Amino acid sequence: MIPAEVLQMDQDDGLAHKRAAFDLPDNIVYLNGNSLGPLPSSVPARMQSLINDEWGGDLISSWNMHGWIDMPQQVGEKLAPLVGAAAGQVICCDSVSINLFKVLVAALQLRPDRSVVLSQTDNFPTDLYMAQGLESLLGSTRMQLRTVAEQELATSLDNDIAVLYLTQVNFRSGAMHDIASLTRAAHEHGALVIWDLSHSVGVVPLALDEWQVDFAVGCGYKFLNGGPGAPAFIYANASLHDQFQQPLQGWMGHENAFAFEPAYKPAKGMAQFLVGTPNILSLAALDTALDVFADVETTALHNKARALGELFVELVQKEPGLQELVLESPARSEDRGGQLAFSHPQAWSISRALHKEGVMVDYREPNILRFGFSPLILSFEEIWRATHILRKIVEEKAYDKPEFREKLAVT
Amino acid sequence: MIPAEVLQMDQDDGLAHKRAAFDLPDNIVYLNGNSLGPLPSSVPARMQSLINDEWGGDLISSWNMHGWIDMPQQVGEKLAPLVGAAAGQVICCDSVSINLFKVLVAALQLRPDRSVVLSQTDNFPTDLYMAQGLESLLGSTRMQLRTVAEQELATSLDNDIAVLYLTQVNFRSGAMHDIASLTRAAHEHGALVIWDLSHSVGVVPLALDEWQVDFAVGCGYKFLNGGPGAPAFIYANASLHDQFQQPLQGWMGHENAFAFEPAYKPAKGMAQFLVGTPNILSLAALDTALDVFADVETTALHNKARALGELFVELVQKEPGLQELVLESPARSEDRGGQLAFSHPQAWSISRALHKEGVMVDYREPNILRFGFSPLILSFEEIWRATHILRKIVEEKAYDKPEFREKLAVT
Repeated sequence: MIPAEVLQMDQDDGLAHKRAAFDLPDNIVYLNGNSLGPLPSSVPARMQSLINDEWGGDLISSWNMHGWIDMPQQVGEKLAPLVGAAAGQVICCDSVSINLFKVLVAALQLRPDRSVVLSQTDNFPTDLYMAQGLESLLGSTRMQLRTVAEQELATSLDNDIAVLYLTQVNFRSGAMHDIASLTRAAHEHGALVIWDLSHSVGVVPLALDEWQVDFAVGCGYKFLNGGPGAPAFIYANASLHDQFQQPLQGWMGHENAFAFEPAYKPAKGMAQFLVGTPNILSLAALDTALDVFADVETTALHNKARALGELFVELVQKEPGLQELVLESPARSEDRGGQLAFSHPQAWSISRALHKEGVMVDYREPNILRFGFSPLILSFEEIWRATHILRKIVEEKAYDKPEFREKLAVT
Repeated sequence: MIPAEVLQMDQDDGLAHKRAAFDLPDNIVYLNGNSLGPLPSSVPARMQSLINDEWGGDLISSWNMHGWIDMPQQVGEKLAPLVGAAAGQVICCDSVSINLFKVLVAALQLRPDRSVVLSQTDNFPTDLYMAQGLESLLGSTRMQLRTVAEQELATSLDNDIAVLYLTQVNFRSGAMHDIASLTRAAHEHGALVIWDLSHSVGVVPLALDEWQVDFAVGCGYKFLNGGPGAPAFIYANASLHDQFQQPLQGWMGHENAFAFEPAYKPAKGMAQFLVGTPNILSLAALDTALDVFADVETTALHNKARALGELFVELVQKEPGLQELVLESPARSEDRGGQLAFSHPQAWSISRALHKEGVMVDYREPNILRFGFSPLILSFEEIWRATHILRKIVEEKAYDKPEFREKLAVT
């Protein structure tokens, strides 16, 4: 029996109507919206029209007729309110990883006398890998990645640091940095900041302009629901434009791409971040997916994600049978993004057993169950149902079956 | 009246049945297949299923259930026969531009005592721009781009050259390099080769393994018909694997991405070229588009493209009214890829007037009309119709109208 107060929370949910904007199977509780956002209902028709009418019917003319060539900027501008950016500072292209490389080099150009990139030991691996790749390429006299534990970040800022290079919401624990204060601290030491907003955008209020962030990147396929492998984005503060030249100089970033000049000249503003031909199919899906956010306040998104997470923690922690699940996320919901991590020695098998019962969650090595609280699709009743199923699986050790032990390629 | 010999050519065309594999509007002669390939008829259903059933229905489980995670390799293997590669040497990801950056750095690592990258003055701009960007990043003592005219390439090879860096088929003129002989010459001087096959693949026979090519890249949206901004590909000769580490070290190129380890370890083989999360929507479209090539010999493709081009040149050159059109491509069809260039002082207006009459062609600065001969979709009758319409437009100066002078964003 679902408690009355849970049903009341759904009654009071100002975002409840948004569930209808998505095509989600019945009888699934989707706690993976932080990993792969669900399908917005408006995407299939847009894609059909794009493929059949634009590509199929108007063919190459579509670059002009249907504004394909402007899509990286157009999608960037649609994203801008979600990150708190005035126009002309966000562009959509390539992957988060590739965009990190661009902004790392750009930031280093702005601090030519410094070489240290300061990051966090448990930053998302691709952030670390891309910086390691750049360090190998340039040599450690020009660029050096230094990683410290989260709690040592503020005290590790010194006047050697060229760039503070962080992900706002930790991919495992959901712990959330205060961008405003860390950016201020970095600037006080003459360092620039690069924020990876992959686990923030679409669920956490962001004010990049107000916080005077220098560069940011983010992901299109998590809380933004842009589809598997959707294009990523870059934010660069307008005050820095024209002071750097990103290194992946492709023809789409040229001042005049269709002049086909032999020498590269960077386009003005964000367009210099473009490299190859924009991926129109994926941009169109993300473009349409973003329309769901048009009438939504980002504070409302975070408030609901927090409330869903609080209910989840409460329901887990009050169950005597779930005491083996240890919360690995910050205890206070205001310190978290849109996800929660619990450790359990049998986390993998539990994740598979949950999946079989229609509760889709992530597993992260070595023993983490990760639950994402996408505020556009989830009801409080679903949180109750998910914890109810979780309790049964754990209490009855229903996860302890060979079928739930088998490892998969993607976890 | 269409000449009988033209109709006979269509009768004898062993690829004529392939037109039915594409959704092309009636009454269009599409001479842009070299720029944006048309829509394969099988793509819409695949995309609908991918979007509705996989993304929408199976959600994040699709990474395993529907093999999303393997798509870069899978599409690479489907491409391999088209470039003459044994298995394990082609992978599909990112854009041509970004892939050029990866293989440039990889090739330079293999020749640590050399720094010169030799290219052609009129190589496709993005190839030059990416190399210029790398030169700026590394400094010219580590990497230096040297460009020479096409006819000076062979004599410019010396023992300073680390990499010969060329596009096989010139984007403007369609002039085609002999990969085998230039690769041999480069190797005799101890240089490696990087071939950009963007204007070759899908229309020209390629034998990368046999020619002992070191690295190659190519485009998915031209003759391969993978859709606007389709992912590109990389070929790396198996003999070189494990001897380099490409610099854009993203999590998908890690030996064990889902272990989320803090230190990068490149995956074995081609997988190290992966960077960010694969773009599934675009990969699926290209994957399906490639099925059209399953039963086609690449020599048959080139033979038909040559025959179409020969007929086009013949019909243009015999018309007294078309003498202002100057052939800017090699005279012999065996020296060309799948396209032709003619210059004319009013090329832009002519291209717009042709477009209005249903003949879709490219314009390239400053005065080039570019005609692509996609052998899977074009009939010889269409070539006749296109030149017929071209003659009327040029003879009657029908292009000389204000509406045809207006410039567009994409040309």
